[in-house]
Amino acid sequence: MDLTSLGEFGLIRRIRRRVGPGCGVVRGIGDDCAVTLPAPGSAILSTVDLLTEGVHFDRSFHPPRLLGRKSLSVNVSDVAACGGTPRHALLALAIPPGTDTRWVDGFMDGFLAVAREEGVTLTGGDTCGSKGGVTISVTLMGEREPAGVVGRHGAREGDLIVVSGTLGDSATGLELLRQGERDLSHPCIRRHLDPTPRSRLGRLLADRGLATAMIDVSDGLLADLEHILEESGGGAVVQVEAIPLSDPVRRVSSDPLDAALSGGEDYELLFTIPSGRKGKLEGVSRESGIPLTVIGRVTGGQGITLREGDRPLTMAPSRGYDHFRSG
Amino acid sequence: MDLTSLGEFGLIRRIRRRVGPGCGVVRGIGDDCAVTLPAPGSAILSTVDLLTEGVHFDRSFHPPRLLGRKSLSVNVSDVAACGGTPRHALLALAIPPGTDTRWVDGFMDGFLAVAREEGVTLTGGDTCGSKGGVTISVTLMGEREPAGVVGRHGAREGDLIVVSGTLGDSATGLELLRQGERDLSHPCIRRHLDPTPRSRLGRLLADRGLATAMIDVSDGLLADLEHILEESGGGAVVQVEAIPLSDPVRRVSSDPLDAALSGGEDYELLFTIPSGRKGKLEGVSRESGIPLTVIGRVTGGQGITLREGDRPLTMAPSRGYDHFRSG
Repeated sequence: MDLTSLGEFGLIRRIRRRVGPGCGVVRGIGDDCAVTLPAPGSAILSTVDLLTEGVHFDRSFHPPRLLGRKSLSVNVSDVAACGGTPRHALLALAIPPGTDTRWVDGFMDGFLAVAREEGVTLTGGDTCGSKGGVTISVTLMGEREPAGVVGRHGAREGDLIVVSGTLGDSATGLELLRQGERDLSHPCIRRHLDPTPRSRLGRLLADRGLATAMIDVSDGLLADLEHILEESGGGAVVQVEAIPLSDPVRRVSSDPLDAALSGGEDYELLFTIPSGRKGKLEGVSRESGIPLTVIGRVTGGQGITLREGDRPLTMAPSRGYDHFRSG
Repeated sequence: MDLTSLGEFGLIRRIRRRVGPGCGVVRGIGDDCAVTLPAPGSAILSTVDLLTEGVHFDRSFHPPRLLGRKSLSVNVSDVAACGGTPRHALLALAIPPGTDTRWVDGFMDGFLAVAREEGVTLTGGDTCGSKGGVTISVTLMGEREPAGVVGRHGAREGDLIVVSGTLGDSATGLELLRQGERDLSHPCIRRHLDPTPRSRLGRLLADRGLATAMIDVSDGLLADLEHILEESGGGAVVQVEAIPLSDPVRRVSSDPLDAALSGGEDYELLFTIPSGRKGKLEGVSRESGIPLTVIGRVTGGQGITLREGDRPLTMAPSRGYDHFRSG
């Protein structure tokens, strides 16, 4: 069956039947607005991501279930980067009318699976036809007491720069997919198609008051570090030999360092901590199960200096993804 | 200058410079999440609308400033239909890289003008390239104490069905535009390109506890009335001669009644009130400056019956816009 047979309101009913009652939800799908109750004393953390076919994803190799997962995960990652708890999501979908409902069902399977894993309730959204490809817009609202929210603006001279997990895996996965590799169990491909947001780690870092500034690595390490420096002021020195690379990235990527510096979409957390609190990292890493690596330091200067040992790196890396320039 | 020269982050900086501090905004544009503080005791009303080029708008005749206005207004209308006060917006834009920055500036002029008029602060969003046309996703968060929120589910047998303003103007405007008419001062064309959300009216109806159910007329009178009946149960009788039509619609539309019943996008409020409270409508109408017209009654039956005087109407009207079927 395609969407023309099901109809717009048939699709909404089909999605609605799959969504149970949610914590803090007064009115979910089926009204002009979703009505939710924030926990007393909480600030609302809100974020939106727009994913467009041919730019953010390729339906020829991105299975609908994994695309549904990724659509929500990338927003969960934004809430994690602020130390928040994700709560309520709105999903807006523009879909070509001829699309098979199995594609939409698969997409919703993945989306709702991540919602369950992360404690998120789908409370509303919008569906419409598209004359181009599929466009997905996910809005996620999370919560945290205002004083505990971590932003991009708190990094100070001397702070250590830390990154979770490994970098470059997603870019390497995309490189493999573009070469025609279709083994979905390959760790880099998996990482690109179905990234894992670092929810628990983000909350732990905020709970402990450890991160002075934090961002998720979506645009690429250099671009995202630049976003922190733009808000916090100052510069940074990054030791490239310290950047954590997975074995598959080292083995498979045509340029592991460039994948790590500029690839983006790893959805790891990049954050700064006061240098005196370095000893606290091990406990957080153990508790979250995610390796944490110090890769550099915030300076009083400007811009990002890459070093290998004590020598400045002479490469001119690409600078992350710019939607109007890259492509 | 086009967006390729400005770059993604240049565009974000350009938009950010135009946005002042907002009420309840802890962190606005420039972080992974916007951070906002809800008023104590308030529920959050959230809504999202996706507007796609070639489906929802035609850039060949929709001036960017009016499209920017409409993008926010249609969401303000959803919050109004729940009786809420709009507060914080997220704007996600997918734009072809070759687009002139003047188009984006015009769009933002309109968007931010409605934000000012309605007391809304732009707190964040997403920008990306598009391989197709422009896609606009606006998320709006509003507030109201939970007990005062009006939904679609409260209509009861015997309630009167009331509509604000006049219907069919937007569809008539679109008909004129498609015929090549370009006079932006024509009231129907204006109504289609730049609808006025009924914010004050929606809040008044909720404040007075007058509306038992409410929706904004976006899909068309019949489709939107059906949405209310779906949530509330029951059926409805609508007197077609009572449906308020403007003079321009009567004069210009090829089918004024069909435009009113099925045209949609008028963004008037359609609501039900207990029949004993009909006398309260005049005061609300005077205070809001918007005419209110009783057009029918909720019944214990099923479906919508159209009547002209005391005879059933024999026409088979189209049933409003379905994104996967119409077009």
